Amino acid sequence: MEKPYVIGIDIGGTNTEFGVVNKKGEILYRGRVSTKNPDTKEDYSSVKDYLNVLIPELKKIIDLAGGIHLFRGIGIGAPNGNYNTGMIEFAPNLKWAKEESVHLTKLVTDSLSLGSVLTNDANAAAIGEKAYGAAKSLKHFIMITLGTGVGSGIVVNGYVLYGHDGFAGELGHTTVRPYNGRVCGCGRSGCLEAYASAPGISRTAREMLETDWDKSNGKKASSLRSITDRDITSYDVYVAAKNEDELAIEVFNFTGRILGEAFCNFVTFSSPEAIILFGGPAKAGELIRKPIVETMNANMMKVFKERGSENCKTKIIFSELPDADAAILGASALAWEL
Amino acid sequence: MEKPYVIGIDIGGTNTEFGVVNKKGEILYRGRVSTKNPDTKEDYSSVKDYLNVLIPELKKIIDLAGGIHLFRGIGIGAPNGNYNTGMIEFAPNLKWAKEESVHLTKLVTDSLSLGSVLTNDANAAAIGEKAYGAAKSLKHFIMITLGTGVGSGIVVNGYVLYGHDGFAGELGHTTVRPYNGRVCGCGRSGCLEAYASAPGISRTAREMLETDWDKSNGKKASSLRSITDRDITSYDVYVAAKNEDELAIEVFNFTGRILGEAFCNFVTFSSPEAIILFGGPAKAGELIRKPIVETMNANMMKVFKERGSENCKTKIIFSELPDADAAILGASALAWEL
Repeated sequence: MEKPYVIGIDIGGTNTEFGVVNKKGEILYRGRVSTKNPDTKEDYSSVKDYLNVLIPELKKIIDLAGGIHLFRGIGIGAPNGNYNTGMIEFAPNLKWAKEESVHLTKLVTDSLSLGSVLTNDANAAAIGEKAYGAAKSLKHFIMITLGTGVGSGIVVNGYVLYGHDGFAGELGHTTVRPYNGRVCGCGRSGCLEAYASAPGISRTAREMLETDWDKSNGKKASSLRSITDRDITSYDVYVAAKNEDELAIEVFNFTGRILGEAFCNFVTFSSPEAIILFGGPAKAGELIRKPIVETMNANMMKVFKERGSENCKTKIIFSELPDADAAILGASALAWEL
Repeated sequence: MEKPYVIGIDIGGTNTEFGVVNKKGEILYRGRVSTKNPDTKEDYSSVKDYLNVLIPELKKIIDLAGGIHLFRGIGIGAPNGNYNTGMIEFAPNLKWAKEESVHLTKLVTDSLSLGSVLTNDANAAAIGEKAYGAAKSLKHFIMITLGTGVGSGIVVNGYVLYGHDGFAGELGHTTVRPYNGRVCGCGRSGCLEAYASAPGISRTAREMLETDWDKSNGKKASSLRSITDRDITSYDVYVAAKNEDELAIEVFNFTGRILGEAFCNFVTFSSPEAIILFGGPAKAGELIRKPIVETMNANMMKVFKERGSENCKTKIIFSELPDADAAILGASALAWEL
């Protein structure tokens, strides 16, 4: 009998979430532990201490599902997770994997006697989309995850593109502004992430509010100006744009244009059937999709357009995975390949 | 017995060259026909007329090599050749394939009763490099062909990346200058090709000669100023740079910097072991490689650098295929996959 279940584990900076997943992408049992030590509120100092908390919880849901013999394997999504090596490599946000490489798949597999596989969050999202979501029928697509950063998972011929070292697919860090670009969290300048992440969108709003962006009318009125007691978030911009605030709409236009320009370059690389948007800012829907598509149609090389049309062959679509479960589902989908 | 030979055909705008190639990449027999009708000096008006000239010549070298039973297949490199479909699709420089798609592999295979496969020139060069040249041991690399245009062939896990429609790998048309970029032959602006092709290099020289590029000294002396009776070519710039003409060296520095910036973006995509340079401008050797490597080391995202070093993991190397034979060899290498 084919084994019906896999485990998906999503290791985030704050929480680690996991679940028992079936072939349909349903999470049958789930659990959560803190990625941090509940006593100190800081990261565990060693991976051993962390696994001493996590492994017993995994055993519980394995038993609930009927026992280890029903499981195909374990998929793990983690920051800086390297598929090629099975290691979390020098993750800046995980104390126990900051200064050294941690061979997580080996440790987990030894503890549970079950094969495991690891990748980073964005690649996991791409695999999840292929297994259970909008990419079920796609062999060539790019997943773009918009959130605190901009991540990407590139699928070619049905397989994630890992490159020679496991680090391929860092499209959030392609340079979109070679001169005078915004400083990015990676220490470089002009990266896509500095514009299209949630903080990038907030910054665009801030910059537009600070400058007379509409010279003819002087400072443009905007409901966002009433937010004075805290930083403006990308969600604030979304709400304002939904209420037809012109400045907020222009923030999404600007963001979409930069994404559209970057996507034109991505298409010259792998000519995917679709680019799939995932994450908070993607919830803006047409507000962000429309300027992306318009920019692509205006700038794409002809060979990548439908014959006799200005429309690009590559479609811009949205993730079909439920946000709250996408990380677990994505990680779990990896394990079906075991 | 494994069949020892393949045929490689390189269809250029002026000539069609072909050869019998063995496993070692040696061309045992070769031939050439004009791609144009010798009577009119123009393209043949139909593919049938063209093949009526080509096929008998192919039969001759097949017989010279011992007969069709010794052949594994035929590989064809052609402008706008599509691997997925076997068609030359709307090639602007081939009259018989300009207004319609021509199913070349079917026509050739029907004529010779031998399987055939088609791709574009740059992909053929990449496959040739993998079969016989600098990429023999590489599974992840990018071939960059510098010539009249800038072409690319991307190899991932040992296979050329064709994308969903067969057109992936048009890296000469990634945008490297989003604002005020040079107009490109593709009709768009700011493409890599407009800077790093041979005509792009000539233009850089022309622009530098026309402007006071060294403000402190006024117009810089340059041996290139003595070329007044014709256009300056990229080869002129190379000769001048070899003779330590400062302006000519700066032309290569400028070209290398733009290539280096573009390569940083390519690495975020597929993290290749190497990027291989091919074609006329690549003959400049260290003159062009040095600024590429320096720019990559200065701009690459940290995860793509060797640990504890400023050096990038991705190496910049040169093609090891003999220029004159590279197109036939590349096309032939395709046929081993049949």
